[in-house]
Amino acid sequence: MKGESAFVDALRLLATDPAARGLVDDAAVLELGVADGPQALVLTHDVMVEGVHFLSSQDPADVAWKLVACNLSDLAAKGARPLGVLLGHMLGVDDERFLMGLAEVLARYDVPLLGGDTVSGGPPRTLGLTAIGRAAHRPVPSRAGARIGDVLYVTGMLGAAMLGFEALRDETGADSTAYRRPVPRIEEGVALAPLVTAMMDVSDGLLLDAWRLAEASFVSLAIQSAAVPIATPEDRRLAALTWGDDYELLFTLPASVMPPMAATRIGSVEPRGFAPLFLDGEPIVNEEGLGYRHG
Amino acid sequence: MKGESAFVDALRLLATDPAARGLVDDAAVLELGVADGPQALVLTHDVMVEGVHFLSSQDPADVAWKLVACNLSDLAAKGARPLGVLLGHMLGVDDERFLMGLAEVLARYDVPLLGGDTVSGGPPRTLGLTAIGRAAHRPVPSRAGARIGDVLYVTGMLGAAMLGFEALRDETGADSTAYRRPVPRIEEGVALAPLVTAMMDVSDGLLLDAWRLAEASFVSLAIQSAAVPIATPEDRRLAALTWGDDYELLFTLPASVMPPMAATRIGSVEPRGFAPLFLDGEPIVNEEGLGYRHG
Repeated sequence: MKGESAFVDALRLLATDPAARGLVDDAAVLELGVADGPQALVLTHDVMVEGVHFLSSQDPADVAWKLVACNLSDLAAKGARPLGVLLGHMLGVDDERFLMGLAEVLARYDVPLLGGDTVSGGPPRTLGLTAIGRAAHRPVPSRAGARIGDVLYVTGMLGAAMLGFEALRDETGADSTAYRRPVPRIEEGVALAPLVTAMMDVSDGLLLDAWRLAEASFVSLAIQSAAVPIATPEDRRLAALTWGDDYELLFTLPASVMPPMAATRIGSVEPRGFAPLFLDGEPIVNEEGLGYRHG
Repeated sequence: MKGESAFVDALRLLATDPAARGLVDDAAVLELGVADGPQALVLTHDVMVEGVHFLSSQDPADVAWKLVACNLSDLAAKGARPLGVLLGHMLGVDDERFLMGLAEVLARYDVPLLGGDTVSGGPPRTLGLTAIGRAAHRPVPSRAGARIGDVLYVTGMLGAAMLGFEALRDETGADSTAYRRPVPRIEEGVALAPLVTAMMDVSDGLLLDAWRLAEASFVSLAIQSAAVPIATPEDRRLAALTWGDDYELLFTLPASVMPPMAATRIGSVEPRGFAPLFLDGEPIVNEEGLGYRHG
């Protein structure tokens, strides 16, 4: 595949939703009905830079998947179902593979490609994606609503992305799917939205993200580290709690409410104490080192 | 200003709309009422790459202005008023100036900053912006509706951005505002939307964009070059018609309809002939050389 016009021609085959206008117009046009009453749109935009957010050596199909999935995860954290995405693409050496991964992730989550822009540039290549969704429930959950006495939960297992990254980096042959192909928890987010007092996705590490939820809600979160389900050996528990990219949902529920799907109770919401976060009773007074962003 | 957190803190001062949620949530949440009946959202995303779409030496305030303005121009071409923007920002050496330009353009067009992402990377730096708007009129104009017998119009004067670019590049001291600070024709687009049969903005050059409108509508456009209002000396007329970045509106109206604001009649819509575009009676059979993208 050579050049912008060949890439856009190929994109057009994916952009079959009427809102995309065949990618031949200045913009996408998304018609909203009134049947459902007032609506809340959820909008998010993430950027991935080569060498920072993805490895130059990675399969472009996996890069495309992750670019879409991490934005859909942000929608999931708001209990929103995706209406579509706009892609800011920088042409690369293997755009056929990129398009294959893009087609896969869009089909998997039934998300229309609505538009975007294609440019030449780099290295490093920079890719951007905007996702727009419709909230299934209003008010739309935020990070700020956790209340004293609530219970803190997380979906899935943490550390799986870390193991996948290491398998990929060290070419061990072990399964790297969790790092390459994260799963946005869309249906879980939709089911949780009417119940939660606060919710977010775990993109930068459980402890750092819990810190942020506590700060936004002005409470303290007390986490029992042994309660957190991990995908790693026990001796790497702390690493699993600080690594990112797992895209699980972290949320708080009133003590009387049961989560409507599998999720693990990992702590409680306490009055604001010395610190926003207590791990096994010890205050965490500094967010440095709690989490980080990865290749 | 140092680093991502300082930049985001400064952005937060701009993101005062409730939909932005103070930039502390996973996503922006835009509440839509039902009072206005069914609605059409208009979505666009443009990417600007250092050295391709802007000069490394340009004032970052101007880069920010243009990044927003070119997206608002896409909304204008759909007759849409902006609801907000999401910024994909790559940190640079003078982000204070970038923020000043961003604040200016957002204030000038009363557009909320809703969210986005901030990353490190480059050079070259890559900046992305998503704009979302609400169409003032439905059906929303497209490029595809021009009908035989319609009249072709353009707003403003062409070639002003070219003169501005040359003034900047050659440091002549002449006025470069038209290149640095393009004006999206939002109110014109809103006024035209109920009247036009086809509309687009002129971003890549009048002739290339007219070619695209003709192709989308499957008609031929006959343009009288002498009728096109130009900002340049007469001997640069063809350059003015092929240079981009002017962000004027190009549109077709039925012959019986007068434009509701100042606009110039530059041609007519004809049955599809040998070519999509005729300039002074001569068919243009190849889109190569009709227009281009500039620094």
